Amino acid sequence: MKIAVDAMGGDNAPKAIVEGVMLAKKEYPEIEFLLYGKEDEIRKYVTDESQLTIIHTDEKINSDDEPVKAIRRKKNASMVLAAQAVKEGQADAIFSAGNTGALLAAGLFIVGRIKGIERPGLMSTMPVLGKETGFDMLDLGANADNKAEHLVQYAVLGSFYAQKVRGIQQPRVGLLNNGTEETKGSELTKKAFELLTKESSIHFIGNVEARELLNGAADVVVTDGFTGNAVLKSIEGTALNMMSLLKQSIMNSGTKGKLGALLLKDALRNLKNEMDYAKHGGAVLFGLKAPVIKTHGATGPDAVAATIKQIYTMLQADVVPQLVAHFEETPKHEEPTQ
Amino acid sequence: MKIAVDAMGGDNAPKAIVEGVMLAKKEYPEIEFLLYGKEDEIRKYVTDESQLTIIHTDEKINSDDEPVKAIRRKKNASMVLAAQAVKEGQADAIFSAGNTGALLAAGLFIVGRIKGIERPGLMSTMPVLGKETGFDMLDLGANADNKAEHLVQYAVLGSFYAQKVRGIQQPRVGLLNNGTEETKGSELTKKAFELLTKESSIHFIGNVEARELLNGAADVVVTDGFTGNAVLKSIEGTALNMMSLLKQSIMNSGTKGKLGALLLKDALRNLKNEMDYAKHGGAVLFGLKAPVIKTHGATGPDAVAATIKQIYTMLQADVVPQLVAHFEETPKHEEPTQ
Repeated sequence: MKIAVDAMGGDNAPKAIVEGVMLAKKEYPEIEFLLYGKEDEIRKYVTDESQLTIIHTDEKINSDDEPVKAIRRKKNASMVLAAQAVKEGQADAIFSAGNTGALLAAGLFIVGRIKGIERPGLMSTMPVLGKETGFDMLDLGANADNKAEHLVQYAVLGSFYAQKVRGIQQPRVGLLNNGTEETKGSELTKKAFELLTKESSIHFIGNVEARELLNGAADVVVTDGFTGNAVLKSIEGTALNMMSLLKQSIMNSGTKGKLGALLLKDALRNLKNEMDYAKHGGAVLFGLKAPVIKTHGATGPDAVAATIKQIYTMLQADVVPQLVAHFEETPKHEEPTQ
Repeated sequence: MKIAVDAMGGDNAPKAIVEGVMLAKKEYPEIEFLLYGKEDEIRKYVTDESQLTIIHTDEKINSDDEPVKAIRRKKNASMVLAAQAVKEGQADAIFSAGNTGALLAAGLFIVGRIKGIERPGLMSTMPVLGKETGFDMLDLGANADNKAEHLVQYAVLGSFYAQKVRGIQQPRVGLLNNGTEETKGSELTKKAFELLTKESSIHFIGNVEARELLNGAADVVVTDGFTGNAVLKSIEGTALNMMSLLKQSIMNSGTKGKLGALLLKDALRNLKNEMDYAKHGGAVLFGLKAPVIKTHGATGPDAVAATIKQIYTMLQADVVPQLVAHFEETPKHEEPTQ
């Protein structure tokens, strides 16, 4: 099992990336890591040479590069070389904490789509508050416009993932909508509802509302990339803003408040941990011929290691080959004959 | 100035509604209230008969009634009679804490749209955390599908409101999008961006992301009703879930935690207050011939009084007549000649 790692992507690269790889190596002696990036910088953090190949390159994609242009012009960027390695069968998966748009482009244009999947989607496992489990949501923004048929494909992708990687026997699939009643929705969601009801390979439980997501209303939530992106960012923004407001209120409430915060340290840390969805691994650009995984740019070694565990599980469970088989066997949706 | 009040709408009706009206009367001796509902039940909470007319009716719309059917069949429901009063010029605005869908239907079908406004939108003033101010966002779900032209109308409506009611000189209008760059977006938001740039009556500042809303990225945020609804519910759901998780963590952390919570009482209350957007009044179904205002079903007397203050300000500032004039004078968008 070989994982191609973009060692130069992310705010703390290559330090956090290489340190994370070092942690993961101990747990998974069967993984070979191909590290793409500046050799001398990478070597600073290599504590053990086993299971490791460093492929030197001076070029890298920056966080503010225009994604498609960057992929096309920076042919020797660490991310591009890592994606090429997957395409050419030298690696089984790619991992990066770099420019999300560029990784999406590298996934689509270099790694390539599974036959039959029209629009790969970005998926994360989001937290269900107060529980160990989470829910998988897609598309979180790989696309700006989706058709109803794409949402059905997301339901299949998400169900495979929830089952094979997260171990949920019969994942409950919900359609994000503006009400729970069957008649609710936009043109897109009404049509998606109809198609999801007919899709026999999933367990569709109907509409779910954004208010109930963090309560665990479903194990897999499908939506178009525009809405998914807005919902993800709303949840993140609200959580971050509330935490910082609480901190500020504590700072402004004098000695009494600071003592209170000290006594509540565990409860406050728990709240922060619950909201931290990096514990479930990175975001998967799903529907491609190999796992393409992205973590937050500000990621640390622990989150890198958690994401490598996630990739390991995806590869072990043969998620992509099974998806390939599923979509090859599935006939295209036919229009009903009138 | 006369306000028609659906005294039977909401979980705590008529108690909270009538008590709120009693509070508001003291502050605004120039408002006449028309209270629609069961006279004997309403009278229980009337402490002062001045500025008050009770119009008795036994019928009311329930929270689980199908909105359009309810409006058409329950001709004598308190909400329907209140809307009729506005239509017939007996009242200048309508207030309800009842079934949101039914109030939208009553607004559209009974009160009626301002000429030139295609799709009235639902607007609330949402909190900017750590500041007294807020931002107006629409459409929050009156529509499931919107065209780019509607978003431009929302920008005009929201700007009028922010200026006339919230006193912001030159409201910054943002378009909710999946990135801040000009080139970002769905087909809908790309087209809306183009039209908003051309609209001379507003101060368009470009795209805003959902993550930055509670930071005050704009004074007015426009979006389609489906996305707006999902974003509103994501923010609400995240805030509610985080507060309840924090409470639970405190309860589980023994005497130490409870003492800490006691010391942090002010900070925790501050957090809750900051998120409570009822302080800015109710949601406006905007684009109709008169103010149609909705508050949360679980609303209390104080929030009712705050919403009446909001209606008073809208009527005082002549918001609707000015909008009527604006949209009468504005020529329809013309397609550019090639």
